[in-house]
Amino acid sequence: MGFHYLTNITLEQAKKDYLELMIKNGFCAGTERIPVQQSCGRITAEAVYANINAPHYTASAMDGIALSAKDSFGATETTPIVLRPEQFTVVDTGDPIPEHCDAVIMVEDIVNRDDGSVSIHAATAPWKHIRQIGEDICAGEMVLPGSMEITPSAIGAMIAGGVLKVKVIRKPVIGIIPTGDEIIPPCEDPRPGDILEFNSSIFSAMVTQWGACPKIYPIVPDKFDNIKAMVEQAVDECDMVLLNAGSSAGREDYSINVIRALGEVLYHGIAIKPGKPAILGCRGAVPILGVPGYPVSGIIVIEELLRPLVEYWLRDSGEAKHYVEAVLTRQVVSGLKYQEFVRVRMGYVGERLMASPLARGSGVVSSFMKADGILEISQGTEGYEAGEIVRVRLLNSELRLKNTLMVIGSHDPLLDELADMLHATDHSLFMSSSHVGSMGGIMALRRGEAHAAGCHLLDTENGKYNKSFIRRYFPDGGVKLIRCVGRQQGLMLQKGNPLGITCFADLTGEGIRYVNRQKGSGTRILMDYLCRENGVKAGSIYGYDREEMTHNSVAVQIASGSADVGMGIYSAAKLYGLEFVPICIEEYDILIPDTVWETPMAQKFIEILKSDGFKNRILAMGGYTIDAPGEIIPID
Amino acid sequence: MGFHYLTNITLEQAKKDYLELMIKNGFCAGTERIPVQQSCGRITAEAVYANINAPHYTASAMDGIALSAKDSFGATETTPIVLRPEQFTVVDTGDPIPEHCDAVIMVEDIVNRDDGSVSIHAATAPWKHIRQIGEDICAGEMVLPGSMEITPSAIGAMIAGGVLKVKVIRKPVIGIIPTGDEIIPPCEDPRPGDILEFNSSIFSAMVTQWGACPKIYPIVPDKFDNIKAMVEQAVDECDMVLLNAGSSAGREDYSINVIRALGEVLYHGIAIKPGKPAILGCRGAVPILGVPGYPVSGIIVIEELLRPLVEYWLRDSGEAKHYVEAVLTRQVVSGLKYQEFVRVRMGYVGERLMASPLARGSGVVSSFMKADGILEISQGTEGYEAGEIVRVRLLNSELRLKNTLMVIGSHDPLLDELADMLHATDHSLFMSSSHVGSMGGIMALRRGEAHAAGCHLLDTENGKYNKSFIRRYFPDGGVKLIRCVGRQQGLMLQKGNPLGITCFADLTGEGIRYVNRQKGSGTRILMDYLCRENGVKAGSIYGYDREEMTHNSVAVQIASGSADVGMGIYSAAKLYGLEFVPICIEEYDILIPDTVWETPMAQKFIEILKSDGFKNRILAMGGYTIDAPGEIIPID
Repeated sequence: MGFHYLTNITLEQAKKDYLELMIKNGFCAGTERIPVQQSCGRITAEAVYANINAPHYTASAMDGIALSAKDSFGATETTPIVLRPEQFTVVDTGDPIPEHCDAVIMVEDIVNRDDGSVSIHAATAPWKHIRQIGEDICAGEMVLPGSMEITPSAIGAMIAGGVLKVKVIRKPVIGIIPTGDEIIPPCEDPRPGDILEFNSSIFSAMVTQWGACPKIYPIVPDKFDNIKAMVEQAVDECDMVLLNAGSSAGREDYSINVIRALGEVLYHGIAIKPGKPAILGCRGAVPILGVPGYPVSGIIVIEELLRPLVEYWLRDSGEAKHYVEAVLTRQVVSGLKYQEFVRVRMGYVGERLMASPLARGSGVVSSFMKADGILEISQGTEGYEAGEIVRVRLLNSELRLKNTLMVIGSHDPLLDELADMLHATDHSLFMSSSHVGSMGGIMALRRGEAHAAGCHLLDTENGKYNKSFIRRYFPDGGVKLIRCVGRQQGLMLQKGNPLGITCFADLTGEGIRYVNRQKGSGTRILMDYLCRENGVKAGSIYGYDREEMTHNSVAVQIASGSADVGMGIYSAAKLYGLEFVPICIEEYDILIPDTVWETPMAQKFIEILKSDGFKNRILAMGGYTIDAPGEIIPID
Repeated sequence: MGFHYLTNITLEQAKKDYLELMIKNGFCAGTERIPVQQSCGRITAEAVYANINAPHYTASAMDGIALSAKDSFGATETTPIVLRPEQFTVVDTGDPIPEHCDAVIMVEDIVNRDDGSVSIHAATAPWKHIRQIGEDICAGEMVLPGSMEITPSAIGAMIAGGVLKVKVIRKPVIGIIPTGDEIIPPCEDPRPGDILEFNSSIFSAMVTQWGACPKIYPIVPDKFDNIKAMVEQAVDECDMVLLNAGSSAGREDYSINVIRALGEVLYHGIAIKPGKPAILGCRGAVPILGVPGYPVSGIIVIEELLRPLVEYWLRDSGEAKHYVEAVLTRQVVSGLKYQEFVRVRMGYVGERLMASPLARGSGVVSSFMKADGILEISQGTEGYEAGEIVRVRLLNSELRLKNTLMVIGSHDPLLDELADMLHATDHSLFMSSSHVGSMGGIMALRRGEAHAAGCHLLDTENGKYNKSFIRRYFPDGGVKLIRCVGRQQGLMLQKGNPLGITCFADLTGEGIRYVNRQKGSGTRILMDYLCRENGVKAGSIYGYDREEMTHNSVAVQIASGSADVGMGIYSAAKLYGLEFVPICIEEYDILIPDTVWETPMAQKFIEILKSDGFKNRILAMGGYTIDAPGEIIPID
């Protein structure tokens, strides 16, 4: 089962060598002739020349009369000239100018007379108010150079120039082959061990965005011959092929051996993380890229290694990647051996752009969805300290980051509802939330890393929530505590309560598996407090060290049977159909620094907290009490 | 035939009132449920919640063995523990964790023994190397808020969360109705008076870029009942309707009367130029926009008045328009009554961003294609002086502008070929050329407004080209004169030379219509010189004041019969099949300032001038002599 990568080549070198090999092998773009009307966004394969003049005839540029300019010479306000009907022709804009006429006088400047003649009160110059032939485009002239993107107005110019079909770069067809015995097409009720195949959907959407044409093949079982046959078919039918192996080392053997059997392998193993197991291969002029199975690895590999080939094909010099400097909120450690790509959430707090590293597991596709940027840590760098200024590649616009309310701290599903409502109310506003627990949120606010923090911290001295912590951590003030909701905390239990847990003391029972929240979360502090109050030693609860980051993930472990009990809020228990033993109602509030308070973003947020829409959503979730949310709570 | 607009409302007010009226009338986005795989780039109609957990079972994160962590406690390098086969299960990455197991040890960290048991040399912690259920996404959690654009990774996250269909905003269907008796579908051989219908193709491409779905109706003749019937059909079938009238005032009567008959008209006449005759109307919740017939007017009107409706529908807060400051190269005069939109070509000369106004005729669709930006002159402003700093809305990226070689001066079709070759050689480089005549080019270089200038200026004292002008206009040097081509100038005549013109003196003949080049062009200077040399008075040549800006447009006037003779280069005569009486061979050279010379852009340009590819293209065009193009010509 052991496995060794052949190479640990740098990404830059691998990219360069791959493109060079492919060009040597004859990799180049195909072309096609398509109707001009369908060519918007496509790339011209060669220069386009006009077939006809535009305008193609001498045309009136105004509504009026066409005449020979000479006939108007001498006309003035005091000595008008009368033109006989045979001396002029009434023309509308766009009408052809009759022979022997060489000027147009506007309808506003003539006086119609009863006998059909007209009088004019000023002379006109030859070619006045006439659109000359070819004024816009001359036949034979170049309308558009080659290798240019076709715009809507270029479509107009081509049609005006009598060009009805245009030779463009054919969109490259990218074959995507998913492999794996456990891989199944997307469904709503997979069995344990089934892995939903969504990589091909992600890759397909990505290459479509780049201007290529995806072709997804059926899932191939992990058998050498089947994979080989499918790759062979794809190489015949496509311009580039992605072979998406499972993430198990054994499966990569199939990929590399298939590619070797059909063509050649340039590199196996690139010095990047995630994405290391990538295979750069080809059969003749068709690149075959072996893509690791984990979605995040796959996204990085096709972004870094397939995209340059697509850009080469499409004669695209590559959109300039947009880098910005940002303050890193947490330490990031990186191996020296690899160039690492860390997804970060970003936002502006005042003038400072902050970057918070997201979960680094390469199986966590949602981390890519949430990412606003990528922190690229070069090979040979050990990482960065919290507070360091780092260079981040932006995935979202700076405007969006400026309009993103960053909420950090304690997790509650109501934050997602608030994010939805904020964006619905004003589509230019966004909200991102990070779950680092109540204390984490307070610390982040102190460091100026977020706009707001959700917290529910019990002062075990007096049984009151939040206020004393705020006095302690913000002794000089500068923050407002905003009432949000009361929420029901309690023990979440498996449906039907098979173990008969009815009170706190039952948690130490034989065979009872607890699942906890992470240290620093308000719920953990509550739990530690309850242990002391109830005289229960934390160490005597099995699983006390098993930490989850959210109420929902605690509930999920219980619902799925991998734990029996955990502390959490009623809405999470309700969502997963769990039994619930109420323990207390706590105050979940929002902390907002004074500097943030006056911003339109924060004011809109408060407006939503106070709205009936928010109340209705919260009450539907269950387990919350509502009492004037959005009000400022006096701290002293 | 007289016509009066009802209103001269400001654009901002019109936009605001139109959207408000439409909302009041019930204008709002439709929705549809589509497969998630097809949803990239679409907008969620509501928040999306996960149906299942991802992972949906407890899965191994590594290749190795699954075990109960307790069984590993105490294992060290010196005191390994041996696990019997029933104590562990071999798992691959992604495999489900068997019941009673709660940890995975990596394959690298175990030693297989002959009896089927394994020994381990370190303890493991519970849940190590295990992907917990819901680690990525928990069932019931919000995957994506409403009104959000769906990205490739969001597609992956939705499928991982068991979401197979997603409710998105339906793309609005925009009906486009072209009208006009002379309007014909695009073809290659229109008759005089026929007007090629390309507006619908431009508008269709534009709305597609914005995320809408165009529906083009057949061309409707200028008859009230026909137009009314077609608009009625379109209102039934579409979400918004564009009624594209001809540009003649009479035709707008039909548009406004049709809209009035079917629904209501909010405004007719907006204080913008071009685009003034726009009609803002509707039938109930369906906007009907009356769009002027000239393409440039139409583009401005639908960009400014339709796009906000499309953005409202798509819940798009509108991409931030990107404004930059630039130096205006020529004076722009604007009426006080209107907000004016002037297309400009742009480029960087050193650090200075220059903006050169393009032709302002609203029929000139190619001007929009060439535009890099729009100078918006607000109502009540008279315009700007040359050299003023103006604020320009960018249509192209700044990177592209930085990589654009701006060539100005004398016109020659070889400049288009050079532009094509430069971009083909390096897709990141662009070249734009403006035709202002040889003297215009020299003056532009003196003012630092361009990178290079084409010139062919005859010194009538000594019969030599260019050098003496450069000594005169650049007395302190600072420019290089680069050899380009020799080109054949002569008289271009109608095919078969029906008027029997054989020499210069024939130009004054009875009934002979000359067409000239503009003052300041090298060809005009040559012509003026030839008149003096031949003792011909310019005033005695009919049409001497009729000026065209390029060799091709002179040739076109002769080819189409609106003139009999003109001075120009052989390649233009050849292109249009004209007779040609050679007069002289002139030197067409390129002037490049020293400050530009060293830039990679200029060096690439020189490399192309020296290439065989350039020689081959030029010789194929005919009428050129080639002698070491790209060499520096000593000026003294």
